[in-house]
Amino acid sequence: MHIDQLETPVATVDLDRLERNIARLQAHLDRHGIANRPHIKTHKIPQIARMQIEHGAVGITCQKLGEAEVMVSAGIHDIFVPYNIVGEPKLARLVALARRCRISVTADDEIVVHGLSAAMEQAGLTLPVLVECDTGLERCGVQTPAAAAQLARLIANAPGLHFGGLMTYPSSERANTFVRETRALLAAAQLPLERVSGGSTHCMWQAQDFPEINEHRAGEYVYGDRHALQSGAMTLDDLAFKVTVTVVSQPTENRRIIDGGSKTFSSDLGTAPGHGLILEYPEAIIYSQSEEHGHVDFSACSHKPLIGERLTVIPNHCCTVTNLFNQIVGIRNEQVEVTWPVACRGLIQ
Amino acid sequence: MHIDQLETPVATVDLDRLERNIARLQAHLDRHGIANRPHIKTHKIPQIARMQIEHGAVGITCQKLGEAEVMVSAGIHDIFVPYNIVGEPKLARLVALARRCRISVTADDEIVVHGLSAAMEQAGLTLPVLVECDTGLERCGVQTPAAAAQLARLIANAPGLHFGGLMTYPSSERANTFVRETRALLAAAQLPLERVSGGSTHCMWQAQDFPEINEHRAGEYVYGDRHALQSGAMTLDDLAFKVTVTVVSQPTENRRIIDGGSKTFSSDLGTAPGHGLILEYPEAIIYSQSEEHGHVDFSACSHKPLIGERLTVIPNHCCTVTNLFNQIVGIRNEQVEVTWPVACRGLIQ
Repeated sequence: MHIDQLETPVATVDLDRLERNIARLQAHLDRHGIANRPHIKTHKIPQIARMQIEHGAVGITCQKLGEAEVMVSAGIHDIFVPYNIVGEPKLARLVALARRCRISVTADDEIVVHGLSAAMEQAGLTLPVLVECDTGLERCGVQTPAAAAQLARLIANAPGLHFGGLMTYPSSERANTFVRETRALLAAAQLPLERVSGGSTHCMWQAQDFPEINEHRAGEYVYGDRHALQSGAMTLDDLAFKVTVTVVSQPTENRRIIDGGSKTFSSDLGTAPGHGLILEYPEAIIYSQSEEHGHVDFSACSHKPLIGERLTVIPNHCCTVTNLFNQIVGIRNEQVEVTWPVACRGLIQ
Repeated sequence: MHIDQLETPVATVDLDRLERNIARLQAHLDRHGIANRPHIKTHKIPQIARMQIEHGAVGITCQKLGEAEVMVSAGIHDIFVPYNIVGEPKLARLVALARRCRISVTADDEIVVHGLSAAMEQAGLTLPVLVECDTGLERCGVQTPAAAAQLARLIANAPGLHFGGLMTYPSSERANTFVRETRALLAAAQLPLERVSGGSTHCMWQAQDFPEINEHRAGEYVYGDRHALQSGAMTLDDLAFKVTVTVVSQPTENRRIIDGGSKTFSSDLGTAPGHGLILEYPEAIIYSQSEEHGHVDFSACSHKPLIGERLTVIPNHCCTVTNLFNQIVGIRNEQVEVTWPVACRGLIQ
């Protein structure tokens, strides 16, 4: 089937570009001796995760246990869940995962470490736990190298746990400095620091500039989006993920309505105006959205589309868009080659 | 199972409140002789749609054909899709739906009318088509009463179509005036105007103030959210829909991280700051989100939660949140009574 025969709105991935994006980042990180551990939250599709592993990734990153459970069942054997796993039900699921694959997690607080330790000791397992470090993004994470070293010692001494290294996001000069200072404190405590996990798509081509960080987690790089374009990490020719929509209304001279809104594109914004980039009309602005309608201003465009015309949209943020679709259509040479269920979407965390 | 045993993040609906919300709006609209045609985009659950019909709704509103297909299969017989249906594949699906139930749609352009007419005439069916009127929201819709009357005449004369009335959103004084002027033009053309569909949860208790509008489409009223709270249409005691989350990190004195982010709450904002209202800590602000983490500032709270504490969040916009969950858990007296799949989510439009 030709891509133009697909009903809209439809999310497609250009398979040639997908494969090229996967191969290129792998080659770049290989060249610099940095382990590649891509984040599957972007695609949530086991088939793409397997492609990433086949290209040389050391394993994958999942953001929640539900994703990891799907990926283990799909044959992925090395999974990092950079998340504080808290509470009995989730610890029981983590134990079950640890029996099925090599899994590692993060912690940023002794309460979390105690929970992990009790669960793993009781199960007779040893879990690698990385210390999450807040190096400027103000999300989770210990606040200082001293706190990181202290928590690392707690993990190293906790039954059922193994100190697995440090984790932060994104890789940056500030992160590099934080890790260097923590490494010195750990050396003084005879605690070796092997794995340091950083990441982001935006800085992926500069990963080698942060020598303290030896593992890279990138997610969006497989698909690309307007964020990646704006950051300079990817060009228009790299973008593999697109949403095709149809103009369904032309109420005024300059206003057009497309059949994709906040339940297609999410409401994530970026630095560029509007809810996505329309490739055929780059000057057009998707200025607002209803749930199933996008409202577009074509006043800056000399030619304006009419009802029935199909448009190709690069979303602001591909990760939250794939999460809204039950399936993604793989395209090669404008023909449908494969349809992948977004297997990890909507799962229990 | 007690609600506290559910793994987080979990979306729950209080069944007593749900039933009360459904009954109360029905009674209000009945009292004023206004037809109730609730919008199922909010819940996307056939069981709740059937409750709405059993309480007296004349039918339901769906925003896309995929929703209507699920609802017809679930036994709903009167469905309004206020959408310009464009293109052969969607017209074929509309014909199939029209053979299975009483379905009506909207149009705001002669191109749309011609497409509908050709499909319905060929199928030997008659489809009621309402003219969508833009009465201030600047989305779809004809721009003037004159344009509305002209399109109504086109529909009335088109093979396979029946002029079904006018549709706008939300009900308002401006909408009322627009309809009154259109009605006068239609009367001069001997075209009776029977059905006029307006709506919104925010104005539902004032629906009778707009006498030209005799059908009301409300969606959020079944669940309620922070939008409905801010608008004054619902009180805290009316809100049936909640998301329970867990504090998973306490990196600083005032910052806490919860296990719900943009893939739980969407990124829809409102007039109140942040990404939702935490019932136990109403002064706290969910100031930003990652995909699976919410970042909360508790500096205005005298007491602050610790890792493991469960919090109850009223989302800004319930419609985009239910769309992110595979299932909603129905609760009565703090016990799980039912689990409903969100059957219409992620479907093809």
